[in-house]
Amino acid sequence: MSTDGTQLDQDAKKSVLRLLTYGLYAVTCAHQGDTNIFTANWLTQVSFEPPLLAVSIENDSASLPLILASERFAVCPFATGQRDLAGALGRPRRKAGDKLANMAHGATLGGLPLPTDTLGYAECRVTGYLRTGDSTLVVGEVIAAGMQRDGEPLTMREAGFRHSG
Amino acid sequence: MSTDGTQLDQDAKKSVLRLLTYGLYAVTCAHQGDTNIFTANWLTQVSFEPPLLAVSIENDSASLPLILASERFAVCPFATGQRDLAGALGRPRRKAGDKLANMAHGATLGGLPLPTDTLGYAECRVTGYLRTGDSTLVVGEVIAAGMQRDGEPLTMREAGFRHSG
Repeated sequence: MSTDGTQLDQDAKKSVLRLLTYGLYAVTCAHQGDTNIFTANWLTQVSFEPPLLAVSIENDSASLPLILASERFAVCPFATGQRDLAGALGRPRRKAGDKLANMAHGATLGGLPLPTDTLGYAECRVTGYLRTGDSTLVVGEVIAAGMQRDGEPLTMREAGFRHSG
Repeated sequence: MSTDGTQLDQDAKKSVLRLLTYGLYAVTCAHQGDTNIFTANWLTQVSFEPPLLAVSIENDSASLPLILASERFAVCPFATGQRDLAGALGRPRRKAGDKLANMAHGATLGGLPLPTDTLGYAECRVTGYLRTGDSTLVVGEVIAAGMQRDGEPLTMREAGFRHSG
């Protein structure tokens, strides 16, 4: 028996990890006049008291340095039906350009971009992070929150996206 | 404007955090003959390469010391229809007693408990952790995996549980 990874069944690993359930969220950030927005699904609450969220962000993303420098990010749950928006915002900035330029958005209490059509937002202050493989797991305390409208959240299942495995 | 938390709208915070989407998972552990199993929903993949999972575990849980000492845990997605099992395994061991004693289970490749009726498992080697408020965020690399049967995963939405906000 080996559990050092050399005998990891890649097909089984993919099959099991694709059973994990996810939502879809717009994550926004701002630092010294630079802003960005991207789509995340590797995101979860991790504490009630204080209220903390964790989000895994690719190491080569445009947003990660902005979030670590500003120590702020906002999580905005997409609504059911927003599959196309979630897909468009999932493209990296180096390919998609300024994704906020042509979309309606306001601001969170702390001044982060807030897409007008998302259900609401939780603005977080970074309290820690962990380098985790190809991504960085950023933890933040919810310091402001607001609802924009009622509605059901968009799920990965509804969108049919595949980002796990 | 204040974003230092003193003006956090508690109702809005709860409403937004309850829009997050979760699955339900049996997490198991074993250390020097002691074993345990519990239900988790604050769990996500956090890296493709290497494949890493993160799970948030309450600081006062029976499992956390076992996981940190053994540096192992297994994630077993519940199947649709397993709401009652997920609920029962969500009770803390100090109240529920030995939750594995009366349930059918086998073992993962590395010898962790594996409930017979879950869809499969991903066995993880702990690579790091972060103290996050009332819980600890544990990260582990998938070192073994297996499918047990086909089926759809149980979601928090199906179960109707509330563990966020």
